[in-house]
Amino acid sequence: MSRAKEIRDRVHEIIFEADTPAGKAFDVGLLIAIVSSVMVVMLESVKEIREQFASELQWAEWIFTALFTVEYLLRIYSVQKPHKYIFSFYGIVDLLAILPSFLQPFVAGSRYLVTIRTLRLLRIFRVLKLANYVVQGQVISRALRASRAKITVFLIAVMTLVVIVGSIMYVIEGGEESQGGFTSIPRSIYWAIVTVTTVGYGDIAPVSDLGQALSAVLMIMGYGIIAVPTGIVSVELTQAQKELEAGLNTISCPVCSREGHDNDATFCKYCGGEL
Amino acid sequence: MSRAKEIRDRVHEIIFEADTPAGKAFDVGLLIAIVSSVMVVMLESVKEIREQFASELQWAEWIFTALFTVEYLLRIYSVQKPHKYIFSFYGIVDLLAILPSFLQPFVAGSRYLVTIRTLRLLRIFRVLKLANYVVQGQVISRALRASRAKITVFLIAVMTLVVIVGSIMYVIEGGEESQGGFTSIPRSIYWAIVTVTTVGYGDIAPVSDLGQALSAVLMIMGYGIIAVPTGIVSVELTQAQKELEAGLNTISCPVCSREGHDNDATFCKYCGGEL
Amino acid sequence: MSRAKEIRDRVHEIIFEADTPAGKAFDVGLLIAIVSSVMVVMLESVKEIREQFASELQWAEWIFTALFTVEYLLRIYSVQKPHKYIFSFYGIVDLLAILPSFLQPFVAGSRYLVTIRTLRLLRIFRVLKLANYVVQGQVISRALRASRAKITVFLIAVMTLVVIVGSIMYVIEGGEESQGGFTSIPRSIYWAIVTVTTVGYGDIAPVSDLGQALSAVLMIMGYGIIAVPTGIVSVELTQAQKELEAGLNTISCPVCSREGHDNDATFCKYCGGEL
Amino acid sequence: MSRAKEIRDRVHEIIFEADTPAGKAFDVGLLIAIVSSVMVVMLESVKEIREQFASELQWAEWIFTALFTVEYLLRIYSVQKPHKYIFSFYGIVDLLAILPSFLQPFVAGSRYLVTIRTLRLLRIFRVLKLANYVVQGQVISRALRASRAKITVFLIAVMTLVVIVGSIMYVIEGGEESQGGFTSIPRSIYWAIVTVTTVGYGDIAPVSDLGQALSAVLMIMGYGIIAVPTGIVSVELTQAQKELEAGLNTISCPVCSREGHDNDATFCKYCGGEL
Repeated sequence: MSRAKEIRDRVHEIIFEADTPAGKAFDVGLLIAIVSSVMVVMLESVKEIREQFASELQWAEWIFTALFTVEYLLRIYSVQKPHKYIFSFYGIVDLLAILPSFLQPFVAGSRYLVTIRTLRLLRIFRVLKLANYVVQGQVISRALRASRAKITVFLIAVMTLVVIVGSIMYVIEGGEESQGGFTSIPRSIYWAIVTVTTVGYGDIAPVSDLGQALSAVLMIMGYGIIAVPTGIVSVELTQAQKELEAGLNTISCPVCSREGHDNDATFCKYCGGEL
Repeated sequence: MSRAKEIRDRVHEIIFEADTPAGKAFDVGLLIAIVSSVMVVMLESVKEIREQFASELQWAEWIFTALFTVEYLLRIYSVQKPHKYIFSFYGIVDLLAILPSFLQPFVAGSRYLVTIRTLRLLRIFRVLKLANYVVQGQVISRALRASRAKITVFLIAVMTLVVIVGSIMYVIEGGEESQGGFTSIPRSIYWAIVTVTTVGYGDIAPVSDLGQALSAVLMIMGYGIIAVPTGIVSVELTQAQKELEAGLNTISCPVCSREGHDNDATFCKYCGGEL
Repeated sequence: MSRAKEIRDRVHEIIFEADTPAGKAFDVGLLIAIVSSVMVVMLESVKEIREQFASELQWAEWIFTALFTVEYLLRIYSVQKPHKYIFSFYGIVDLLAILPSFLQPFVAGSRYLVTIRTLRLLRIFRVLKLANYVVQGQVISRALRASRAKITVFLIAVMTLVVIVGSIMYVIEGGEESQGGFTSIPRSIYWAIVTVTTVGYGDIAPVSDLGQALSAVLMIMGYGIIAVPTGIVSVELTQAQKELEAGLNTISCPVCSREGHDNDATFCKYCGGEL
Repeated sequence: MSRAKEIRDRVHEIIFEADTPAGKAFDVGLLIAIVSSVMVVMLESVKEIREQFASELQWAEWIFTALFTVEYLLRIYSVQKPHKYIFSFYGIVDLLAILPSFLQPFVAGSRYLVTIRTLRLLRIFRVLKLANYVVQGQVISRALRASRAKITVFLIAVMTLVVIVGSIMYVIEGGEESQGGFTSIPRSIYWAIVTVTTVGYGDIAPVSDLGQALSAVLMIMGYGIIAVPTGIVSVELTQAQKELEAGLNTISCPVCSREGHDNDATFCKYCGGEL
């Protein structure tokens, strides 16, 4: 084993694994660095703070970006199949976490997008070995994936509804001098979305009697509509939960071969045979 | 078979079927045309764009309307029982999609209602052969239909509530000079709907202590109330889902009599026997 | 049977029963009168309409009130145990439906409360013999009754939360010159309710950084909190639905073997056999 | 038994138990005192009332604080293991209920925090012996505890989403002269939370087309997102309810006396002994 390979393996162990003390220290340090760097960018956007600590924040930001860039290059260097890492979910996130800083000279304000670094925090579960949380996260994402088709159908129906209601509202209340703010169909559709999702900013709101009547109908519909995704997710979550539990309960008794034992069972609850 | 009939059959195949290459091309082209025409109308409602591209947009709109009119007439011509198509759901939608443009000279602003064309997009599932999406859509609509009676009872109760609360609020806060905007009972009912559905624009809001107290009670009630349709839909969705799965499991193999085959299966997946 | 009793029985049949043609006609007429009278009061509250049709609306209102008063007296006269009717739910509603008109000379604006007449519309299900709707309504109300204890516990917890958060917010943002509108603790509690129920008028909103941070925490909590009543009602609705299906399907008549008897039935409703 | 111990036991019985008439009277009196004292503080925050009854309210507040302080000291004196009480949930609440009044001379406005006394009202269930309510409360809290892991994962995902969307919005609409109010990233994140939870104050709202489009996407996502906690809590509530019903049949093994067996178990799953 050449010296170069030895170093590469060591680097890989520290950066990618979380089992050795060095690897764990690296991961915890990384999480702290991510949170700190996002904090720095947030604080920089506050006028009072920016004016007082302009250079300090600037420096901190560049140091963090340098650190993350080195880390990104080390990841590519130490991994066996670099292109697999580069195009993986975390590889792309790691790149996006440093890109905005380099785009700053070309695209004004782009550095604020480094807050995309928060996505890197999702590694937290792996680092802290929160196995239960990982499982629960999988249950949720399995339920969401299973309900994808239903949610898509539902969203297309909602989209059709808001386009039509938005247009009718524009005909009723619209015009350049619209008191309610319905200055164009896209804006009226924006209002319909604000209303049907029950957000209700109030920046655009009907003022005519007919407009308010239509608006009331849309709200009542929104009532029923909001029930649909909730119902869908509930059903799928129940399903995903059951599948999880079923997956954990597959041990069958060697004596009577009946299934359905709890995880902590040592003896068959039907015949008393040892599992 | 006369020449006329032959043409009619060919037209029918292209317009109504999506299995032949020509039919599929027609359907995809139609979807693009629908989206484009809705886009044109939306853009036309934006002042800046309308002023710059007035004639282009006008032309585009008339071309799309002409296209859809020709298509509508061809549909009536090629179908065997025209009156059945005309009074079907899609027949009415197809007519509504062209009517507003022709009403434009008589009713100002009516052309914006051509966004009702988006309803025609619901054909998308048929064109793209998204069978799973169609099934999921049926599950949702079956659940909604099954919960119709409960939802109706619920809506009548909510309606009674908002009428009474709206009136009480008018007595408390109302009057021509109402600071909160409660200028009439219909408007107060509108406020009650905005509140109970948790939309909360804030264009009408109580300012007196008593009004705010009543308002708080209504919100807390709205809390419990919003739970009801969600619960109803959840229960019915679970039911519809079960029925769907049962529907997939009813055929038993005549050879090995095992169940659980998909609907489109021709042979038993366990023993290979013909179903 | 005296003449007086005969008349009384006849009046009772018309007013209280909905099976005879006269009784049905009376009930339908009553529903129309209720809706019309509520409409009249609503229209009267609209300034433009009130100024134009002042005397007509006034007349219509008094005629409706006279009609309902006569009807109320006839109900008391014709029923066998008047005090039982007077203190029943519908008896109280019938009285409340005419009281506000008579209180008008003493309490300004009280006549608008006659919209409480809409509660009388709940009779609609009985009149139209919408048996299924009645059953569904019972399922909902049974579910709500079953979840009463849980909902009460939940509401007490929410109340405690809004009182404490409202007070903290008053300490943070409050004072007579509060920019956000937090002028007193009761008003701050009102804001907390508006926020936690996700209504969000925006008439009172935090302006300081600390206030917005606390506000954000409250919203995130409101997120989880709104899930609780929904979950409770879903669970109880499932239960009530099951009980309905079980309750209507379990006992079959030993004589005619038909099913669908109520739980408290002792005899078959089809053949009269003892269950 | 010394005289001192006798007194201490008697005090303990009155203050901590609710079974004797004296104990019950004390608890009811305490609840009334808590509600009254919170009312006094609320009224004091209302300018008009404070100006008129300044000294009366001040007196009432000091009397209540004195009462609660004496009660707190008596609790410590009469309980056998004072440190256990002091660091228990109710011990800390009891201390927090009197602390703000004493901090008043040092921290302005801190006395309004005595509304934390409302937490003491949670004792109400114990006093009124509302056993069913206590059980229902346990079902809810068990469900919430069981869904803790899922809710945490969900909240981390929502947090990541609002940080990223808030930053993007700041880049789109932000700046010191932002018309929509997006003056800094923390404020933009506050807006994202207000939007995704469907509260929608409207104090900060996008005005540009791009901003409104992004906002609409966030709302639609918020739609799906709000369904997740509801689904989670529904599932866990069903589970907790089932466990409660099952728990009413708790059999403990006669051999190893461990509990937690299923209803259909015939043998202990831990030691194999017959149940």
